[in-house]
Amino acid sequence: MEAHMRKRPQRKRRSPRLGAPPGTLVADPQARPPRVHIIAYGPESCHEEDIEDPQAIRPFIEQWPVVWVNVDGLGGGEVLSRLGEVFGLHGLAMEDVMNVPQRAKVEQYGDTLFAVAHMLSLDGELQTEQLSLFLAGKAVITFQERPGDCLDPVRNRIRQGLGRIRSAGADYLTYALLDTLIDHYFPVLEEYGERLEALEDQVVRQAGVEVVSQIRQSKRELLMFRRIAWPQRDAINSLLHEETPLITPETRTYLRDCYDHVTRVIDVLETYRELASDLMAMHLSIISNQMNAVMKILTVMATIFIPLTFIAGVYGMNFERMPELKWRWGYPAIMFLMAAIFVGMIVYFRRKKWV
Amino acid sequence: MEAHMRKRPQRKRRSPRLGAPPGTLVADPQARPPRVHIIAYGPESCHEEDIEDPQAIRPFIEQWPVVWVNVDGLGGGEVLSRLGEVFGLHGLAMEDVMNVPQRAKVEQYGDTLFAVAHMLSLDGELQTEQLSLFLAGKAVITFQERPGDCLDPVRNRIRQGLGRIRSAGADYLTYALLDTLIDHYFPVLEEYGERLEALEDQVVRQAGVEVVSQIRQSKRELLMFRRIAWPQRDAINSLLHEETPLITPETRTYLRDCYDHVTRVIDVLETYRELASDLMAMHLSIISNQMNAVMKILTVMATIFIPLTFIAGVYGMNFERMPELKWRWGYPAIMFLMAAIFVGMIVYFRRKKWV
Amino acid sequence: MEAHMRKRPQRKRRSPRLGAPPGTLVADPQARPPRVHIIAYGPESCHEEDIEDPQAIRPFIEQWPVVWVNVDGLGGGEVLSRLGEVFGLHGLAMEDVMNVPQRAKVEQYGDTLFAVAHMLSLDGELQTEQLSLFLAGKAVITFQERPGDCLDPVRNRIRQGLGRIRSAGADYLTYALLDTLIDHYFPVLEEYGERLEALEDQVVRQAGVEVVSQIRQSKRELLMFRRIAWPQRDAINSLLHEETPLITPETRTYLRDCYDHVTRVIDVLETYRELASDLMAMHLSIISNQMNAVMKILTVMATIFIPLTFIAGVYGMNFERMPELKWRWGYPAIMFLMAAIFVGMIVYFRRKKWV
Amino acid sequence: MEAHMRKRPQRKRRSPRLGAPPGTLVADPQARPPRVHIIAYGPESCHEEDIEDPQAIRPFIEQWPVVWVNVDGLGGGEVLSRLGEVFGLHGLAMEDVMNVPQRAKVEQYGDTLFAVAHMLSLDGELQTEQLSLFLAGKAVITFQERPGDCLDPVRNRIRQGLGRIRSAGADYLTYALLDTLIDHYFPVLEEYGERLEALEDQVVRQAGVEVVSQIRQSKRELLMFRRIAWPQRDAINSLLHEETPLITPETRTYLRDCYDHVTRVIDVLETYRELASDLMAMHLSIISNQMNAVMKILTVMATIFIPLTFIAGVYGMNFERMPELKWRWGYPAIMFLMAAIFVGMIVYFRRKKWV
Amino acid sequence: MEAHMRKRPQRKRRSPRLGAPPGTLVADPQARPPRVHIIAYGPESCHEEDIEDPQAIRPFIEQWPVVWVNVDGLGGGEVLSRLGEVFGLHGLAMEDVMNVPQRAKVEQYGDTLFAVAHMLSLDGELQTEQLSLFLAGKAVITFQERPGDCLDPVRNRIRQGLGRIRSAGADYLTYALLDTLIDHYFPVLEEYGERLEALEDQVVRQAGVEVVSQIRQSKRELLMFRRIAWPQRDAINSLLHEETPLITPETRTYLRDCYDHVTRVIDVLETYRELASDLMAMHLSIISNQMNAVMKILTVMATIFIPLTFIAGVYGMNFERMPELKWRWGYPAIMFLMAAIFVGMIVYFRRKKWV
Repeated sequence: MEAHMRKRPQRKRRSPRLGAPPGTLVADPQARPPRVHIIAYGPESCHEEDIEDPQAIRPFIEQWPVVWVNVDGLGGGEVLSRLGEVFGLHGLAMEDVMNVPQRAKVEQYGDTLFAVAHMLSLDGELQTEQLSLFLAGKAVITFQERPGDCLDPVRNRIRQGLGRIRSAGADYLTYALLDTLIDHYFPVLEEYGERLEALEDQVVRQAGVEVVSQIRQSKRELLMFRRIAWPQRDAINSLLHEETPLITPETRTYLRDCYDHVTRVIDVLETYRELASDLMAMHLSIISNQMNAVMKILTVMATIFIPLTFIAGVYGMNFERMPELKWRWGYPAIMFLMAAIFVGMIVYFRRKKWV
Repeated sequence: MEAHMRKRPQRKRRSPRLGAPPGTLVADPQARPPRVHIIAYGPESCHEEDIEDPQAIRPFIEQWPVVWVNVDGLGGGEVLSRLGEVFGLHGLAMEDVMNVPQRAKVEQYGDTLFAVAHMLSLDGELQTEQLSLFLAGKAVITFQERPGDCLDPVRNRIRQGLGRIRSAGADYLTYALLDTLIDHYFPVLEEYGERLEALEDQVVRQAGVEVVSQIRQSKRELLMFRRIAWPQRDAINSLLHEETPLITPETRTYLRDCYDHVTRVIDVLETYRELASDLMAMHLSIISNQMNAVMKILTVMATIFIPLTFIAGVYGMNFERMPELKWRWGYPAIMFLMAAIFVGMIVYFRRKKWV
Repeated sequence: MEAHMRKRPQRKRRSPRLGAPPGTLVADPQARPPRVHIIAYGPESCHEEDIEDPQAIRPFIEQWPVVWVNVDGLGGGEVLSRLGEVFGLHGLAMEDVMNVPQRAKVEQYGDTLFAVAHMLSLDGELQTEQLSLFLAGKAVITFQERPGDCLDPVRNRIRQGLGRIRSAGADYLTYALLDTLIDHYFPVLEEYGERLEALEDQVVRQAGVEVVSQIRQSKRELLMFRRIAWPQRDAINSLLHEETPLITPETRTYLRDCYDHVTRVIDVLETYRELASDLMAMHLSIISNQMNAVMKILTVMATIFIPLTFIAGVYGMNFERMPELKWRWGYPAIMFLMAAIFVGMIVYFRRKKWV
Repeated sequence: MEAHMRKRPQRKRRSPRLGAPPGTLVADPQARPPRVHIIAYGPESCHEEDIEDPQAIRPFIEQWPVVWVNVDGLGGGEVLSRLGEVFGLHGLAMEDVMNVPQRAKVEQYGDTLFAVAHMLSLDGELQTEQLSLFLAGKAVITFQERPGDCLDPVRNRIRQGLGRIRSAGADYLTYALLDTLIDHYFPVLEEYGERLEALEDQVVRQAGVEVVSQIRQSKRELLMFRRIAWPQRDAINSLLHEETPLITPETRTYLRDCYDHVTRVIDVLETYRELASDLMAMHLSIISNQMNAVMKILTVMATIFIPLTFIAGVYGMNFERMPELKWRWGYPAIMFLMAAIFVGMIVYFRRKKWV
Repeated sequence: MEAHMRKRPQRKRRSPRLGAPPGTLVADPQARPPRVHIIAYGPESCHEEDIEDPQAIRPFIEQWPVVWVNVDGLGGGEVLSRLGEVFGLHGLAMEDVMNVPQRAKVEQYGDTLFAVAHMLSLDGELQTEQLSLFLAGKAVITFQERPGDCLDPVRNRIRQGLGRIRSAGADYLTYALLDTLIDHYFPVLEEYGERLEALEDQVVRQAGVEVVSQIRQSKRELLMFRRIAWPQRDAINSLLHEETPLITPETRTYLRDCYDHVTRVIDVLETYRELASDLMAMHLSIISNQMNAVMKILTVMATIFIPLTFIAGVYGMNFERMPELKWRWGYPAIMFLMAAIFVGMIVYFRRKKWV
């Protein structure tokens, strides 16, 4: 039913493992093979590397203050399950990583925090990509469905040492990733704002039936956006109030800001949904108005000429004895009568403001 | 009113025992005779058996770590009431077992947990079957309305010793049953997604009045699905937070996952309900558009030809003194006048973009 | 506005005593004179009697474990106020007894529990009757508006000693009365289910304007039902959680069951309300579809014949010089032209799928 | 926008003192000059007097158990501000007294309780009048916008010593005033019930466009009523639970009754609002049905006679060579053909149930 | 999508700093350069000054009891960031100051309170301007987007020593600013009330399609107003209950009043939104009624004259053998027949109340 379903139907329709025991990691056969990339950094420097064997991550964790392990592609279950072992990630959480899409959420498994969030992009239709994130001590492990994301600003800040990210801990990195992800909701939202504006113009210019499909398409995508954004807010809120030493009070201040952003997204989203609903009503109303105008023209024309045509028909009859036909002024009299009827009708309709 | 009522009206219309004292077990005379099946298992092995006399279950409970007693068919109240005695099941709970359908719920009766859940399947229309479940110490007793269910994955995992089910307790079995049941909601949900997609295509292709019935049918079934899913979520939530030693903390982690699944079901369900409502509005809008187009054609034709026909009628009158009729260029002049009116009308309607 | 208002307008319009001090017992002059009936019972036996003077109840209370005093008819304020004195019932509660209808509720006045509930029946329209109930120690006092109620099952269970009612206390009797009352909501609900089904059939068979009135009537009665059922649920919930020694923990288990029943009623009620709303939309949609079909027929007929009639009119003109009229093949040529126009139009409309 | 705005636009549009410091008492220049009336009473007797100088109230307070100071008219700020000084009323509260309308509320200022409530009356349109009430020790001070109110029942009960009002304290007087005020909502509500009933009759009798305005007017007034009633309920609830020694537990029992009444008002109000919304939908539906019937008549007439008229037109052509015209049975044959077409059409429409 | 977006699209579309680290202050290049104005006051006197260098504020804070620093214009990030340093304002808060619009909120950063509020004005369309406010000890720092605001009443009260503002602290100034800001919502609200009244008149006078756009515009602006007002209420509520020594209990009493005002704004706003929605429904209903009337006229005319014209057409046929044509009374008989049909039709339609 959803917009992107048409493009990748097999993906969307994957139900949670039917029949397999919970925690079973069955990679989607169509998922891309994973690419593991590491960024390790401290206040002084940072180091990046692509990694083949998850075991190779251990020394980084010992040496660097913060290690960000990013995995693009969820295929090849073996690499992922070994990663899970290295960091002691819970089977149910790994299952949620691999069975996309999940609802946004934050869950605590022992001393690990697990978060699900969604990256949005507009490529004609609304595209979603799940970002699964573990905060495990000094390490942040993120899983994405495919290469390419909206997190480059964070990478640049780490590489160039901008802001306080290099001197802060793994919890701040978690915040920075979520915040960047949510900030990328705004351009998407603005695109919908423009679409609705364009649709309104079309509706007012009395476009045809295809505008209905477009309004509906926008409503559907806003509905989908909403289904992403509301759990996202709940998740960030629960992160904000989670009783865990993993998140420092200072980072909580930043998370509050992030919560604020997602609340703004939801505010605008709800407004847009209401505006889109109104558009449909407005369209119906304009169609009705127009039909009314059409009906009036038809009624005016028919009401004026039908009686006149009848009169002409009467004097077109071939009775032998129709004395009027032989009167000297018969023809002008009838023409005058018809003109009088015509003028009378026009006056009547003018009073009704139809003409 | 509901879809399946038409098929088995006597079933659905059974009110709770009118007049009988609470806890009275009156078997529905049309219900199937019960078939009692036992699966007893431990970390090492498992054993299955069909049982006639409920008393024969006792030795199993003493010997095996976990015993799952499954009853298919709710007829023949005697077997059921003796089962209730063996496990000390409360009369009110047994009443809910036999008077289907009940709302999904979790209730504690002494040291027994009682849960009601619903299995869904789509066989043209949405079919529901109540699964009643007791968690009583080492035993799990389940009651189903008829043979055939969606729980075979759990049976297979027990038989083949997959996952941690054989080494876990009766509370984990409870979780596994509920989780499997809820996972089977997803294919049903996807079926509705496809139906709505098909309906939307029909609406856009301007199908007739029968599409209205189909949209309504989908809305009604989604409403029914919703009435199943919301209490289900509440029930799992209360199971998650029930203060009882029957559920271990570890199983609660799994139940949280199960809660998550049912929340996703509800999310999608609400979206579908909204989309189905929009479909009706879209249908109305398309009908209006189409009527508008029809009206325009009629109006154009009538408005152009009615005056022309009138003019022709005038010169068809049989007055003796109609000088125009005798003019040399009378006929061509009138034809030219009518052509001019015709062209003028066309130009007018073209400007209005009706033609 | 409500359905039964038309039948007994004076009753419904009684505002709470305007001007009188609170607690004033002014009997409705049109109310029936009260008939006081006593059922006193214990584990061994039971005794029934009609009573004239409320004072005569005292010995029963001393002798029997439980006494149920039932009053049919709220007229003749004197008997009622003396009853109030015997049991020490609060003036505000007695006012609520006599000024029907009140909202369902449970209130504690000192060591007396006061409950208001509503009996429903369908006699063409939805009929309500208030049941006011006091639980005062060993006695349960119930007030009804008129003779005849749905509580006979409870009476039979007392008389025949079925179930545990004779061995339980007055709180269990309170539960049994409320439970029986709520169980009688189900047949009413089912009746509405059938009515909606019948209405849907009518809507689909394109019934006229009277179906609108009937849908509205159903919606109104469901609205009224809802206004009865929601406070009823709240009342039972507050009874369930009221901190009072009057209700034993065992009876609370039964009340939970009763709460469950009323929740099911509300579930179905809300579904029916939504279905009734959809029916109206469906009706509108079917009307629109039908109008569309009518319009198409009119447009096809008019669009085909109006130009043809015009052509015939042209050659019906009486100009002296109309060379076509004298051509040898003039008539067949014109007939052929008209046939061609006819066929062309048919082809055009067939392509548009109007014919 | 609101109903009564049209009558007294200057009143309604008064914003809260724009620019003036909070607590500034600027009397509305159009408000009536205040008239201060005192009723002082005790268990034994009561005394009434009109007072000019607020200082003259002091001795009454010392001598009598309860003093009710009622002020009609909010003009002449001086008298009011001196009253405020005598009883130590807070500036913000006095501002709310003078800047009507405020929302209903209960606020505690030191040892004074301040309540705002609204009296409703129906004089063609819904009229509101703010009642501001202070409970300050033994005194109750009420402010009304104009003379004439619905509180005479309370005055009569004080004068005639009916009920327990004379023996109770100032808190009971507060309750009695609020309760009387709310009891006067019921006749207004019933009036709306009757109006909706009348409107429904009109809608069913297919009244014209003016019924739309009336439905809307009712909806608007119910909306306004609702905006009065909801805060009123919250206010009484907060009065019920306010932790203050000013309200005795016994009076709280009475306030619970009052809360119950306002809840009933809201219940009915919400029902009426829904019924009014349905009325609009019903009206639209009836209009559509009627248009459908009109369209069918037009279509039947046009579809039957347009082809017949065409045939007549064909044989009215003046071609010289039209062999049919000279056939002996030409005229009867054509007449028969036309009769056949007529009958066929009638049969066709009868099958479609249009005739 | 929003009204003012069309005027200043670049402004509105600024997403939160995409990619920059949080707390980065990047001034909007199009924002005005800031103008810093100081009002320092105490019970005795007050002093005003324009300031260039934020450092120059320090001596004021030492000398005066309260200092209000107002900044108009958010351009030139340097001045703003130095201001932030002087008062120790948090980077995230300063970011919210510069990235307008934010949601209204109150946040505590260490010993500083940060509040966001919105000034509204109606200049054809609804205009918003963010007011950011810091309460830091004795200082209140406010930031506005452009010169000109609604806060002059507060300035005048400070300058002229009206009310208690000069003797109160910085928390009272905070209250006074917020209260004045919210009091200016009322004239805007009243303007919408009048607009809706005017629109209703237009709808009733059956205005054309442009009224739909205007209703929609009002709905959109009310939606925007609502998005301003709801968070504003939450913000004031959290200010009211914030556990901070910065707000004295006395000021809290005043804030409660302010909370009350914004609640009233929201009440009226919701009413207006509902009335605006109803207007659209009313418009549709009136259009339908009108179309119905038009259709009736057309149907009456067509139904009367189409059969008559057909009869005239029949006797206009040129068959040689049409005996009626030669009857002596043929013509009068036919004319009489047609008159009878005419009268019969009129009687029929009069009975249907169409004429």
